[in-house]
Amino acid sequence: MAGLEPLTIAGLRRTYAAGATEPRAALATLVARADRHQDYAAWIHRLDESALDSHLARLAPVDPAAPLRGIPFVIKDNIDLAGTPTTAACPAYTYMPKHSATVVARLLAAGAIPLGKTNMDQFATGLVGTRSPYGATRNAVNPNYIAGGSSSGSAVAVRLGLAAFALGTDTAGSGRVPAAFNGIVGFKPTRGWWSLRGVVPACRTLDCVSVFTRTVADARTVAEVVGGFDANDPFSRRIPFKSFDAADARFGFAPPEKLPFDNDAYRDLYAAFVAKLPSPPRRVDLRPFDAAGHLLYQGPWLAERYAAVGDFLAANPNAVHPVTRAVIARGKTISAVECFRGAYRLAELKREVEALFDAIDILALPTAPTIYTLADVERAPFETNARLGTFTNFVNLLDLCAIAIPAGETPSGLPFGVTLLAAAGRDHALLDAAALLRGEQPSARCS
Amino acid sequence: MAGLEPLTIAGLRRTYAAGATEPRAALATLVARADRHQDYAAWIHRLDESALDSHLARLAPVDPAAPLRGIPFVIKDNIDLAGTPTTAACPAYTYMPKHSATVVARLLAAGAIPLGKTNMDQFATGLVGTRSPYGATRNAVNPNYIAGGSSSGSAVAVRLGLAAFALGTDTAGSGRVPAAFNGIVGFKPTRGWWSLRGVVPACRTLDCVSVFTRTVADARTVAEVVGGFDANDPFSRRIPFKSFDAADARFGFAPPEKLPFDNDAYRDLYAAFVAKLPSPPRRVDLRPFDAAGHLLYQGPWLAERYAAVGDFLAANPNAVHPVTRAVIARGKTISAVECFRGAYRLAELKREVEALFDAIDILALPTAPTIYTLADVERAPFETNARLGTFTNFVNLLDLCAIAIPAGETPSGLPFGVTLLAAAGRDHALLDAAALLRGEQPSARCS
Repeated sequence: MAGLEPLTIAGLRRTYAAGATEPRAALATLVARADRHQDYAAWIHRLDESALDSHLARLAPVDPAAPLRGIPFVIKDNIDLAGTPTTAACPAYTYMPKHSATVVARLLAAGAIPLGKTNMDQFATGLVGTRSPYGATRNAVNPNYIAGGSSSGSAVAVRLGLAAFALGTDTAGSGRVPAAFNGIVGFKPTRGWWSLRGVVPACRTLDCVSVFTRTVADARTVAEVVGGFDANDPFSRRIPFKSFDAADARFGFAPPEKLPFDNDAYRDLYAAFVAKLPSPPRRVDLRPFDAAGHLLYQGPWLAERYAAVGDFLAANPNAVHPVTRAVIARGKTISAVECFRGAYRLAELKREVEALFDAIDILALPTAPTIYTLADVERAPFETNARLGTFTNFVNLLDLCAIAIPAGETPSGLPFGVTLLAAAGRDHALLDAAALLRGEQPSARCS
Repeated sequence: MAGLEPLTIAGLRRTYAAGATEPRAALATLVARADRHQDYAAWIHRLDESALDSHLARLAPVDPAAPLRGIPFVIKDNIDLAGTPTTAACPAYTYMPKHSATVVARLLAAGAIPLGKTNMDQFATGLVGTRSPYGATRNAVNPNYIAGGSSSGSAVAVRLGLAAFALGTDTAGSGRVPAAFNGIVGFKPTRGWWSLRGVVPACRTLDCVSVFTRTVADARTVAEVVGGFDANDPFSRRIPFKSFDAADARFGFAPPEKLPFDNDAYRDLYAAFVAKLPSPPRRVDLRPFDAAGHLLYQGPWLAERYAAVGDFLAANPNAVHPVTRAVIARGKTISAVECFRGAYRLAELKREVEALFDAIDILALPTAPTIYTLADVERAPFETNARLGTFTNFVNLLDLCAIAIPAGETPSGLPFGVTLLAAAGRDHALLDAAALLRGEQPSARCS
């Protein structure tokens, strides 16, 4: 159907505006498409016909020019949609939210249509997309490979054209790694810009809601709708946005030959990306980034995951994926003294990284050092997962914003992705720069 | 000697400018005065004649108009002065700093003359001023009473006229309670404005350097010199200062009859202060403040004190004051999960307090609910100390700035004090408002 291949927000809006189709027909096409792609284990809950009807009925009063009117989207299943169960990929944890998460409520008010809740690594603990009783999500490009996680179903849904955009969450890379592995865009805004109210916490001081789209422009459209202070979220921030000249951005990179890639094709693709940057990039020493990343899974922040779901775990040990249980249980053993020492170390590392981001605008890194098959992850569930966070774990701790973009394919046809990182509050300029690098038409800045 | 009674920065500057005395003579007077007041246990280390000479010799190149040229001051003994031992009131902990703390270095560069290091509750853990092997500091107004702590010696030195100003530190009230008990001004700036580099940590995420003076104007003079970002302090902040109309400030207060005073005279003096506020004040519910205060000594932040000196404590159990040891040792038993849960609770409480400070500019509270004799504290060292933090413990956790000012005397002649609290970054306006309330001449705003 016109406007649905590839499925983008901008394309569908044009199709609607031209009268070539209307939301009800588009939904019917997407429902049929989802039926054909059940093997990917992308879903936890799909809205039935009557639920979709009630969302279509809401459109009557929505301004026809509203940017998301009739645009179908999906929601990672740790983000509340009123009247639809939230599982966080743990059936025993399921609850029925009365209210939608703030970000979802803003999308619904703008006319977007939810199609369902997507599969994920249980409790958003993982970067693989296989730690779920709802099935191991399969990569949309090559189903022998993992989709990446934890927002696995959301990324696959966008790449398969099951929805125009998808909400994810991102604590350690969950909004970026699946974007890279499925060849799409994953935008993780500055912490606190998008409300966490109505989101199951992983690490409450670090969590972000994120979005998957086919284009940077689409990510910007979603950001314009969902971003903004929420007095009901204690971690919401009034972001003092700052800009840089996207057309003349100062880039940083890490020398490809020194990076811990596990995949030669990925190394070559990163080198090729760096070689094509519009201005000569600056070499960056990743040691402070690596040190911050180690704090996340080998240090005090594991205790946040225990604080979020530890009591549930203790009461329902057999209800939890064994890998997830083993990871989170470690959080109980950490002391508050270690916690504060971690905070002190992080404060020092932040200072180093702040100084770097005075000298560059954007740090371009590979999103992940390799991609694994489903069998690889089954053989070594901890090690593979840990490797995948090599270039993502530190980002939220260091208070950066990030956009993962596609950057070519390996000779065997697997997607490779690069992540562009900027200092907190540079989100708008980062989106501009990402659009330029992707060769997208420049569009009006979001305000 | 002219200009030394009462000893203020502004008075001494005028005296110097008039040629009525010069720094060397002023120092000689103060040395003799200190000799006469040894019973107060205000000092840990006094600079000898040769050390004072070398500081006087530094004055030659200092601009004669520099605001602190030749102004004598003292330093709480948890703040480094190069070449003079730092003890934190624990002899076994003593080290010899090569560099002065950033705040001290800025004062020295401005021509201020250090006279010595002052007594304190060991490791800045206490609000009584008695937990020190260098003696229990005596109140400058009535030596049967406590000086308040932990910056006991600094406050007493200013009230006795041993120095024109004194540096303290303030984590839970240590820069305010001793000001109240000695009838002087204690200014605790917004966290991160004054550098902590070269200061022995108590709770690193909360600590502030503070200042004791006779007048608000003098506190402002010191703030102009010592404030400002320090890239070498990971907790230093670039404060986005905001103002309010000091002459028309919107005040909040808590109804005196509902406050937990242990002293009727204090209750009456607070009621009298509130009755004289220039505009009708707004009643404030202190529950979120109380809840934050409980987090400090009954919750995770105790672990910060253990993080700072716990290893020393474990290695040198007999070198530490038994009360201090008992308090800090509890910090070891707290888990990281409790720590993060405390952080979540605090984030919620901050939101409530932020909303309050949209409706008022200044919250005026008693600095302490009573004052104790030295004997009272000896009888019940934990309980008395805990009571003294009733109106101060929550301030740094909630990211407020504060100035403690004198507010009358009890019928028996003991000082009573009020603390004015404002949101982070309102320091300049808060100083303006405090000066107005004190009936001081308005002066130029600090930049």
